[in-house]
Amino acid sequence: MSSVFFYVTYTLCLCLGLLCVLFVSCWSSLWRGGFSWDGSSLQFNWHPVLMVSGLVVLYGYAALVYRVPLTWRQKKLPWKLVHAGLMLLALLLSILGLCAVFDFHRSFNIAHLYSLHSWVGICTVAMFAFQWSLGLAGFLFPFSPPGFRSTLKPVHIWVGKAILILSVTSCISGISEKLLFTLNGSTGEPYSSLPVEAKFANSLGLLIVAFGLVVFGILSKKKWRRPESDGEGVHLLLSEGSA
Amino acid sequence: MSSVFFYVTYTLCLCLGLLCVLFVSCWSSLWRGGFSWDGSSLQFNWHPVLMVSGLVVLYGYAALVYRVPLTWRQKKLPWKLVHAGLMLLALLLSILGLCAVFDFHRSFNIAHLYSLHSWVGICTVAMFAFQWSLGLAGFLFPFSPPGFRSTLKPVHIWVGKAILILSVTSCISGISEKLLFTLNGSTGEPYSSLPVEAKFANSLGLLIVAFGLVVFGILSKKKWRRPESDGEGVHLLLSEGSA
Repeated sequence: MSSVFFYVTYTLCLCLGLLCVLFVSCWSSLWRGGFSWDGSSLQFNWHPVLMVSGLVVLYGYAALVYRVPLTWRQKKLPWKLVHAGLMLLALLLSILGLCAVFDFHRSFNIAHLYSLHSWVGICTVAMFAFQWSLGLAGFLFPFSPPGFRSTLKPVHIWVGKAILILSVTSCISGISEKLLFTLNGSTGEPYSSLPVEAKFANSLGLLIVAFGLVVFGILSKKKWRRPESDGEGVHLLLSEGSA
Repeated sequence: MSSVFFYVTYTLCLCLGLLCVLFVSCWSSLWRGGFSWDGSSLQFNWHPVLMVSGLVVLYGYAALVYRVPLTWRQKKLPWKLVHAGLMLLALLLSILGLCAVFDFHRSFNIAHLYSLHSWVGICTVAMFAFQWSLGLAGFLFPFSPPGFRSTLKPVHIWVGKAILILSVTSCISGISEKLLFTLNGSTGEPYSSLPVEAKFANSLGLLIVAFGLVVFGILSKKKWRRPESDGEGVHLLLSEGSA
């Protein structure tokens, strides 16, 4: 019964994540003119798409890898590699998303990192990069001492949830900022008259919040944690990897 | 040792909360002209102060009431009442904060509830009101069936954390919005040149995030949960209350 409830929640989570990616892509392409990589505002459009896809959706999916009951009978190591691999992809997409906005700023002589959104966002990506490196050193490198690993584990889990909270916060403040800049700075309908674009992007914001809360809910449920029974040491990495 | 670490973290949390209230009050009074309740922008200034103080800081303090080890040897019921009382105060401050901004909007003919900040914010306060009412019915009213209470408890804990995440998200997007409106809409230095007010308000945002993450960290640590040993039923409420 618990397993059925898990899969229902997990499916909801997967669907919400896909909807987030779909909504942010539609916003950038239908209302903001689409994509390019030439320093124009079309390059900026990659920023929301890459941050939502990488820092929120892929990050959330990667965080849940160990929660799927189907994987519990299998060895943990391959799933560690899937977790680390998806997280690396999420981090790379986020860094690419930062490159998009920095390039755009340079082209238009806009100052970098002045807004609260950018302060929270850059802290999030820095924490994510630090967390990933420490996770690699602690849980996948064979020379990491068991004492260090057991101390690191609860910190890794807490920082992981903290990054998810920061990612959602960054995205919501970023969407707000973008809507205020573009709708109030254009000759079209202002943000306060809630044109279709505003309703659509606000809904994207609520979808991101809903996705974050569902991921967070799955992570918090004790019954849905992978049982600590297979006793597989990280020291197996090299021997398995060379097999 | 665990208890010492708790009190260090708890003191940090209390200090961060006080700093948040100090910073938001200074921002409103030193840069935004202070306070009044006359529909002017000085009435708006109550909005950030009341939301940060109520929905974030007091909410966070109230959420941690059961975590203080000194209270574990005492009966749970008085602490339930403290928890519910502080939460009610936090909810009332938040509702007053909403009144401040709605009055201000009415005076200046500004549309209500169009921005993403307002959508997330209103959802947060609605969830908080619902959570408080359900918590009262489930955990403090003597007629609540034990089965309902045990089902409600994990949901109450999860929704409680979700509200904290939403509160932080609402505050960050709100500060961003206010800075974009006031700094870019005035004749002074724009937001992008990072005047002192922008640095100060951005720092307030980081303080709120730090406070939220520390509260969240304390709530997540299993060892710091009140042991479920006193077996005190909520049905004692009326008899104790009348004692």
